[in-house]
Amino acid sequence: MKKIAIFPGSFDPITSGHVDIVRRAVPLFDHIIVAIGTNSQKQSLYPLEKRMEWISRVFQDEPKISVESYEGLTVNFCNERGADYIVRGIRSASDFDYEKTIAHLNNAMFPNIETILILAKPELSSVSSTIVREIIRGKGRVGKFVPKEIAKELKLS
Amino acid sequence: MKKIAIFPGSFDPITSGHVDIVRRAVPLFDHIIVAIGTNSQKQSLYPLEKRMEWISRVFQDEPKISVESYEGLTVNFCNERGADYIVRGIRSASDFDYEKTIAHLNNAMFPNIETILILAKPELSSVSSTIVREIIRGKGRVGKFVPKEIAKELKLS
Amino acid sequence: MKKIAIFPGSFDPITSGHVDIVRRAVPLFDHIIVAIGTNSQKQSLYPLEKRMEWISRVFQDEPKISVESYEGLTVNFCNERGADYIVRGIRSASDFDYEKTIAHLNNAMFPNIETILILAKPELSSVSSTIVREIIRGKGRVGKFVPKEIAKELKLS
Amino acid sequence: MKKIAIFPGSFDPITSGHVDIVRRAVPLFDHIIVAIGTNSQKQSLYPLEKRMEWISRVFQDEPKISVESYEGLTVNFCNERGADYIVRGIRSASDFDYEKTIAHLNNAMFPNIETILILAKPELSSVSSTIVREIIRGKGRVGKFVPKEIAKELKLS
Amino acid sequence: MKKIAIFPGSFDPITSGHVDIVRRAVPLFDHIIVAIGTNSQKQSLYPLEKRMEWISRVFQDEPKISVESYEGLTVNFCNERGADYIVRGIRSASDFDYEKTIAHLNNAMFPNIETILILAKPELSSVSSTIVREIIRGKGRVGKFVPKEIAKELKLS
Amino acid sequence: MKKIAIFPGSFDPITSGHVDIVRRAVPLFDHIIVAIGTNSQKQSLYPLEKRMEWISRVFQDEPKISVESYEGLTVNFCNERGADYIVRGIRSASDFDYEKTIAHLNNAMFPNIETILILAKPELSSVSSTIVREIIRGKGRVGKFVPKEIAKELKLS
Repeated sequence: MKKIAIFPGSFDPITSGHVDIVRRAVPLFDHIIVAIGTNSQKQSLYPLEKRMEWISRVFQDEPKISVESYEGLTVNFCNERGADYIVRGIRSASDFDYEKTIAHLNNAMFPNIETILILAKPELSSVSSTIVREIIRGKGRVGKFVPKEIAKELKLS
Repeated sequence: MKKIAIFPGSFDPITSGHVDIVRRAVPLFDHIIVAIGTNSQKQSLYPLEKRMEWISRVFQDEPKISVESYEGLTVNFCNERGADYIVRGIRSASDFDYEKTIAHLNNAMFPNIETILILAKPELSSVSSTIVREIIRGKGRVGKFVPKEIAKELKLS
Repeated sequence: MKKIAIFPGSFDPITSGHVDIVRRAVPLFDHIIVAIGTNSQKQSLYPLEKRMEWISRVFQDEPKISVESYEGLTVNFCNERGADYIVRGIRSASDFDYEKTIAHLNNAMFPNIETILILAKPELSSVSSTIVREIIRGKGRVGKFVPKEIAKELKLS
Repeated sequence: MKKIAIFPGSFDPITSGHVDIVRRAVPLFDHIIVAIGTNSQKQSLYPLEKRMEWISRVFQDEPKISVESYEGLTVNFCNERGADYIVRGIRSASDFDYEKTIAHLNNAMFPNIETILILAKPELSSVSSTIVREIIRGKGRVGKFVPKEIAKELKLS
Repeated sequence: MKKIAIFPGSFDPITSGHVDIVRRAVPLFDHIIVAIGTNSQKQSLYPLEKRMEWISRVFQDEPKISVESYEGLTVNFCNERGADYIVRGIRSASDFDYEKTIAHLNNAMFPNIETILILAKPELSSVSSTIVREIIRGKGRVGKFVPKEIAKELKLS
Repeated sequence: MKKIAIFPGSFDPITSGHVDIVRRAVPLFDHIIVAIGTNSQKQSLYPLEKRMEWISRVFQDEPKISVESYEGLTVNFCNERGADYIVRGIRSASDFDYEKTIAHLNNAMFPNIETILILAKPELSSVSSTIVREIIRGKGRVGKFVPKEIAKELKLS
């Protein structure tokens, strides 16, 4: 049976922190779906298409990684794709409390789905999409916090 | 003097976690008011009447528990009702930091009002109204997270 | 049925923080036993008799409070005394994590025993027996951190 | 070289907690700019002019303190003003996690800018602008939580 | 290349929490070594041989799991065994802070070694060897907290 | 009046994390005393003389830094030296809770003494003397975690 994992998020935009977690998770699974959860109530900075394009470009060298978007609960999407694993990066104790809550609820609904936590590297443990968006809005330098493909494009546009 | 406690919240909807805390608090007090704080700025998923009806139904076997709604500060409502206690359930360290802040401020305003914290049971420590609402929106199964009276109704509607 | 609570600790020595928690818990119960857990493996700064004497003196005005010592598990002592409640003060998020662990285990062994958490007042939230002992060893002023009965005696001895 | 520090915030309104931190930081620096970050996306309770006026009045006795407003990233404002320090008050472990994230990102963008953390006093460690606003909306007493200049004005208006 | 993981600990004794984490980790790896770190400075309750025997017995049905003991740093043992993964269970935010520190240091010494964190189930999130030892010393019931093989033996002896 | 700060610790041994904090604190003060607290009850890995020698060597280029040892409470030593500031590095939320407790108690005893917290850099936020000692005992590589002067000597000895 193939080991499939979902790496869910809004990726608005994908950060160097996300990229590092996914790449480190690759050897553990046969396939990883970077899955953009869409939520009609939450306004995003970048349109879904742009976010998907960036993720595809960042991981184009890695055949085990694909990109998709989904609506509704992450666990439902896992079941649709036959994924038994959710991969999450954690940076801090407050991340942990959040992940624990979600993982326990997911497990209560679907005991077959396992959450695997991977620690952010120290130098990436302060990076989040929220903060990258604030830096972009404040016209700060994001080069250290997003993949070079995105940094380049953001400078031009 | 009667020992009256307020159990405040928005209960949108009441969860199995809330129910467990209130039932465990019953023996300590003569009367517990489950008090729905209304806030014109915050949009609720369920109307106030529905939330009150659910709570009444869940606790209809327990004469020491009543349901009310209030506007403004919880401590003011305590004083109006002659309640010297606020009961709160806590699930995690982040819950704790929040409750501590509120309890200290309440105490600075009204030193007679005491906050009593009761720990969520392990199997209920990931349940919150916020997450129940997300599961409902995502059409997930909430049977384990809300009282059976609500679970039944949500399935029908 | 009488509502009996245990307030367990090593009280080496009892601090102003402990006293505040016990006094605030008094109205909730018919009787509170301040219970000194003895542990042959842990060396105490003050002998058990001295610790018991101090507690008795501090609470001599309050007939609902008594002092006892016990060996072994706190839950076993609760059952021997017919106590359905354990009262604990909490000061910080790390206190909380510890109390949660203990309360959950107690509950797994004896579901009838309920733990009630009461928040330390802000000005007492840094006081602990451990730190009082360090200040005493370092010949610092402990007047603000222990009941005046103990402060007086420590200055003389 | 003059040692200049920025004390950034939205100060909606300035609280007794803010005032305490700034006054304690004064001896460490030649000049402290209390800097109101403006953010067109966030609705404030009090207009910018009112917030600046209050801060000026509270610190009118202290020549080393001035008030300014800025848009965009705090680090950019630091560089414009030649400030090598950002001063922040911290109250709790969750404050800490937030400050750490911001400080690390600031440092990644501008390694010359140092963040200095000062601990809120115990009796002020539950005070925040967010909560003061809620108390004001709920018509509670804020006298203990804001400088007396503001408390007086709020009572009159 | 075989995916080998180390699950390090002192297992004094192995708990139901440990067993659950290891069993959930099995599908991710080709081989898991439950590795008892020995430390001449730390006194254990049970001798190394007994601890190894218990672990072997608990996992005798699972050919992918073996038991070993080691001295010195876990990362050195990983390298000796060709293990690229360390598996750790986490229960709480304080566990997390500890695991983060260790994982970052391990990574600084040997960047090839990845730490995988798996969340304890809610009902097992208060179980630790430390607390099981205390319950055993206090003659409490440990049946819910250790594998049935150990519970049975502890009752007899 | 000269601004004097104490940087207290056991420095067993001094780490790269300590060195970074002290160097970053230098511009804020006229003099910083790196102060080794001695405690007859705690066994150190390296003798006091060795620890002092290392610190002197590491900071020999910086005339504003000196090394001393002291017994008893840090606040008493501050008063003896006329130091109004204690500088502490913080790495994590658990560090924070500890520093907060100590700072509040110090402030209750001597309100003139201010604690200044400086955040560890991300890449140094997992380094502690405790862990360096464990790595040394386990014969691991400490080159990244201690100043090069110490790393060199530890390799030779």
